[in-house]
Amino acid sequence: MSVAVEEKDVNDVVEGGEKKLSKKELNKLAKAAKIAEIKAQKAAQNQGQTNENDGEDVSIGMYGSYGMIQSADKKDIVFSHLNKISANVHGQEIWVRGRVHAIRTKGKTCFLVLRQRFYTAQVMLFVGDKISKQMLKFVSSIPKESIVDIQGRVEKVEAQIESCTQKDAELHAIQVFVVSSSEQRLPLQIEDASRRADNAEGLAAVNLDTRLDNRVLDLRTTTNQGIFSLQAGVCKLFRDTLRERGFVEIHTPKIISAASEGGANVFEVSYFKGSAYLAQSPQLYKQMAIAGDFEKVFTIGAVFRAEDSNTHRHMTEFVGLDLEMAFNFHYHEVLETIGAVLINVFKGLQRDYADEIAAVGRQYPAEPFEFCEPALVLKEGHRYPDAVKLLREDGVEIGDEEDLSTPVEKQLGRIVKKKYKTDFFILDKFPLAVRPFYTMPDPHDPRYSNSYDMFMRGEEILSGAQRIHDAEFLVERAKHHNIELEKIQAYIDSFKYGCPPHAGGGIAVSWKLTPIAGLERVTMLFLGLHNIRLASMFPRDPKRITP
Amino acid sequence: MSVAVEEKDVNDVVEGGEKKLSKKELNKLAKAAKIAEIKAQKAAQNQGQTNENDGEDVSIGMYGSYGMIQSADKKDIVFSHLNKISANVHGQEIWVRGRVHAIRTKGKTCFLVLRQRFYTAQVMLFVGDKISKQMLKFVSSIPKESIVDIQGRVEKVEAQIESCTQKDAELHAIQVFVVSSSEQRLPLQIEDASRRADNAEGLAAVNLDTRLDNRVLDLRTTTNQGIFSLQAGVCKLFRDTLRERGFVEIHTPKIISAASEGGANVFEVSYFKGSAYLAQSPQLYKQMAIAGDFEKVFTIGAVFRAEDSNTHRHMTEFVGLDLEMAFNFHYHEVLETIGAVLINVFKGLQRDYADEIAAVGRQYPAEPFEFCEPALVLKEGHRYPDAVKLLREDGVEIGDEEDLSTPVEKQLGRIVKKKYKTDFFILDKFPLAVRPFYTMPDPHDPRYSNSYDMFMRGEEILSGAQRIHDAEFLVERAKHHNIELEKIQAYIDSFKYGCPPHAGGGIAVSWKLTPIAGLERVTMLFLGLHNIRLASMFPRDPKRITP
Repeated sequence: MSVAVEEKDVNDVVEGGEKKLSKKELNKLAKAAKIAEIKAQKAAQNQGQTNENDGEDVSIGMYGSYGMIQSADKKDIVFSHLNKISANVHGQEIWVRGRVHAIRTKGKTCFLVLRQRFYTAQVMLFVGDKISKQMLKFVSSIPKESIVDIQGRVEKVEAQIESCTQKDAELHAIQVFVVSSSEQRLPLQIEDASRRADNAEGLAAVNLDTRLDNRVLDLRTTTNQGIFSLQAGVCKLFRDTLRERGFVEIHTPKIISAASEGGANVFEVSYFKGSAYLAQSPQLYKQMAIAGDFEKVFTIGAVFRAEDSNTHRHMTEFVGLDLEMAFNFHYHEVLETIGAVLINVFKGLQRDYADEIAAVGRQYPAEPFEFCEPALVLKEGHRYPDAVKLLREDGVEIGDEEDLSTPVEKQLGRIVKKKYKTDFFILDKFPLAVRPFYTMPDPHDPRYSNSYDMFMRGEEILSGAQRIHDAEFLVERAKHHNIELEKIQAYIDSFKYGCPPHAGGGIAVSWKLTPIAGLERVTMLFLGLHNIRLASMFPRDPKRITP
Repeated sequence: MSVAVEEKDVNDVVEGGEKKLSKKELNKLAKAAKIAEIKAQKAAQNQGQTNENDGEDVSIGMYGSYGMIQSADKKDIVFSHLNKISANVHGQEIWVRGRVHAIRTKGKTCFLVLRQRFYTAQVMLFVGDKISKQMLKFVSSIPKESIVDIQGRVEKVEAQIESCTQKDAELHAIQVFVVSSSEQRLPLQIEDASRRADNAEGLAAVNLDTRLDNRVLDLRTTTNQGIFSLQAGVCKLFRDTLRERGFVEIHTPKIISAASEGGANVFEVSYFKGSAYLAQSPQLYKQMAIAGDFEKVFTIGAVFRAEDSNTHRHMTEFVGLDLEMAFNFHYHEVLETIGAVLINVFKGLQRDYADEIAAVGRQYPAEPFEFCEPALVLKEGHRYPDAVKLLREDGVEIGDEEDLSTPVEKQLGRIVKKKYKTDFFILDKFPLAVRPFYTMPDPHDPRYSNSYDMFMRGEEILSGAQRIHDAEFLVERAKHHNIELEKIQAYIDSFKYGCPPHAGGGIAVSWKLTPIAGLERVTMLFLGLHNIRLASMFPRDPKRITP
């Protein structure tokens, strides 16, 4: 059968329609549309190529390739999920669609492992009355990672299938069709990309750049399916918990007129005849929403930071989780709310994502994340100065109002973990000098401030504070920080017409010079991963903006 | 009492601490921290200013200003919500915190309307045994929009209070404290900003620029509280519905390496020593997530479009809602899913946000949004060509493969509304020529494609299609569209290793030259608003990137 597109085909196709497109155009389009059919024909030819020794093909029509599915028709096939394959449904005939995870032929038998996200099942093909040698040959040649439809009979097995998630049954194939074929040569092997991080056997592993360059393949590992499902869970739990507490979701602009929040490390955007910047956080806008009477708000969205650092902790774009809340008399109303929200997120993750956590743990073993409820707050006798005291007892030389460096934070995390059995804690009352201009000073001691950080496994994930809600005082503090007032005029004006006292926090930007937090960091620390990029589907850093 | 900060105060404060900061620094900080106290003192002085005619102040301690709340101490006051004020709780003494919405004094009586988001209640103050003339004078002088704490007794009223949401009871004040004072002069009046859009009486109204320049005040109107609460509801319902159907939330990068999706109208970003672009949609990434086995994905996030148009429909930044889904054999599996998801969003909005819809409707009257379930799909005899037929019958001159212009879309919306009683419908099978390169052609007629648009009130809100999942065919189509292949290499490579057939849609970018949709547009059209900026908290257009 010829695969060339005949002029006749084109005429058939357009017959009856008004010929608005040129003949040449239509020819091209018809040719394009024909490709699927041609592919199917080719596949059919391949499967039909008989070998004299094979004899008559008893399996004709029971295997082959669909060609490119172009929605030409609707089929009535009902597919079962791979994880339904078990001894309980022994004897049932089912259809499944999945990827060829592994394939091996030995004599008249083909062993195939089919994969569907977290699940794998064994499929067997035996040459016999209904399965021809030609069909075995065809199936044996399907490249790994191809997507196939298999109709088969579920058969329980005597010995557990250790290499699959479906251990007590396998599928004996009746029909096999290729849905979408992979190239033979893969830039990385899924087994290698799934190898345990410690890789004690010294087997082939995949380095981070190769992973990220071929992210589409890499994302198929059980580990990555787990990481990003859990990450979706973090957002869901964060939102659901806040909504239950009366918070309203808002959306804040990413394009801003001035590098208002600190000046350094912002990306500049060409904005028609002028320029603009990419927001490092929704800080000013969520406060404006509070001044606009939304009382309690949260937002999840992209934040940007133009820092030319190439470490395992830095990215240039990430997802911030932010909230802001009016309070009555004391910012601890907010601090306690945030603590409770995060505890609820952690509980929800352990409750709803146990399989995902286990899947990730198989590749990246980590101590389970521990926390106590309510959240441990280092305050009143365990405030910042007391953290300093704990550190000094542990041999760290640190000044009263010195900021915590990253190694010192980690050490504090270890001390707290040992003493209180928690990987999550809140540190209250940071020195005023190390916080941004809009932070409310401590009313009892002007060296400190009504601000707090929250930590997971000894790393900061959230920075928060009571904000100054008085325009006059805000101006005074901005001047003290040498901030150009005209750049933040709209922000300052927001507080001139009555604003409730408020506090909040951002799982986003660290106001210290340490790297940035974000959804990726929460995911990373909860799972105990070692590189922030593992928790970003398509990470961005100074050297990577593709894919 | 002097308001100057004494050296002694500073010494008191820092005594015992290590003096790391200079004396001057500490002086400044101490001064800052003192401001709250000073303000309270000033307020106390003001309230103490006796007028000889007023006699002794029997209300001392029952009114005044808190000064700036700096979290100096925790108070045990329990606040009631304003909407709890009703005849049912007649006689109860409660505390409320709210804004002074209106205030008027007549002789020995002060009428105050207190506002809390959607609710308003009347507060009365009568000079008598417990309320001094001085207290009345103090309360009378509180500027509108100030936030106050009021303790009062709930009293049912004979005649309904028409001007308030709480109609059958008022509050008789016992104590009144200012939490946060507004400036006397407001750049806009909340009543004016809340005026009915048709403004039949020709009263003072607020133009859009004044609103947006003073967005914090403008956001306080009941209308805006309604618009943005409902908008949060759109996101919640969209996500919840998709999650129930097994979709996974993903986050896609906003910074991309090439203006890959069409070329024009992208913002350029300075990226270290090179440059990058802001993504116009998550299109390529959500498809890569499908190739990466996530099966069904959605994402809500910022999208950007550098179009120098200043109309009521254009913005440069908005919030896109996107989804993508693998299907078995026919893209209508996806089309029907999207239809059902949107119907569920509309139902949820009408069920859960009736108060918000009513609030917005008082300022911007609109016909209620009508729809039928399941969604009306113009297909099989009502496909694109049939829409063209409907239009021709209605007198529109339009070619077979001509795209629908905005007025024509609106006309089609009117025809469909009249015929089918729905403000929401789906139009299937657009001409291939007007769709992007990755759109799957119709297998039966190459002039058309497996693509669809969805409409609300005659305006496009979602554009979607089956995408080409075959790398070879994708290259062919990209070449046909003169797209530089090297710019989309990573995207094309995604389809080389097996990819399920898939389709999706974006409430984001219109691939035609008409303006962009987005969360803001869905909100606008659902509520029947007349300008997209009304549905964006801090809108961005070529002329506005502030506040």
